[in-house]
Amino acid sequence: MAQATIKIEGMTCMHCVMRVKKAIDGMKGVQDSKVDITSAVVDFDDATVKTADIEAAITKAGYKVVQ
Amino acid sequence: MAQATIKIEGMTCMHCVMRVKKAIDGMKGVQDSKVDITSAVVDFDDATVKTADIEAAITKAGYKVVQ
Repeated sequence: MAQATIKIEGMTCMHCVMRVKKAIDGMKGVQDSKVDITSAVVDFDDATVKTADIEAAITKAGYKVVQ
Repeated sequence: MAQATIKIEGMTCMHCVMRVKKAIDGMKGVQDSKVDITSAVVDFDDATVKTADIEAAITKAGYKVVQ
């Protein structure tokens, strides 16, 4: 199991936070996530999903991943 | 960048710790590791290397990965 901390821009309220969390938690291989207004800490199985995939899901949800 | 915490059995001294650290740090895609007598915390690029690969390197070095 791996963990990634992803910095995110564009979340302004708890609805944003919940939307990002839902996008992340819905991914196969993601075990758990903790999302706040500026970042997500994601526990995932790196045999199933990659950090880049999780970042893509965040971008698709409408938020900006900060590298 | 992802991080994995890997529990390891069989290290008995600082020589073991250094041997494990060397095995991990020598892998492509590994950015940093902190190894103590019972575990390794590894920062790595999960586009390049997987937790399973890192665990295999630890096993190959002669120590037991605890799942």
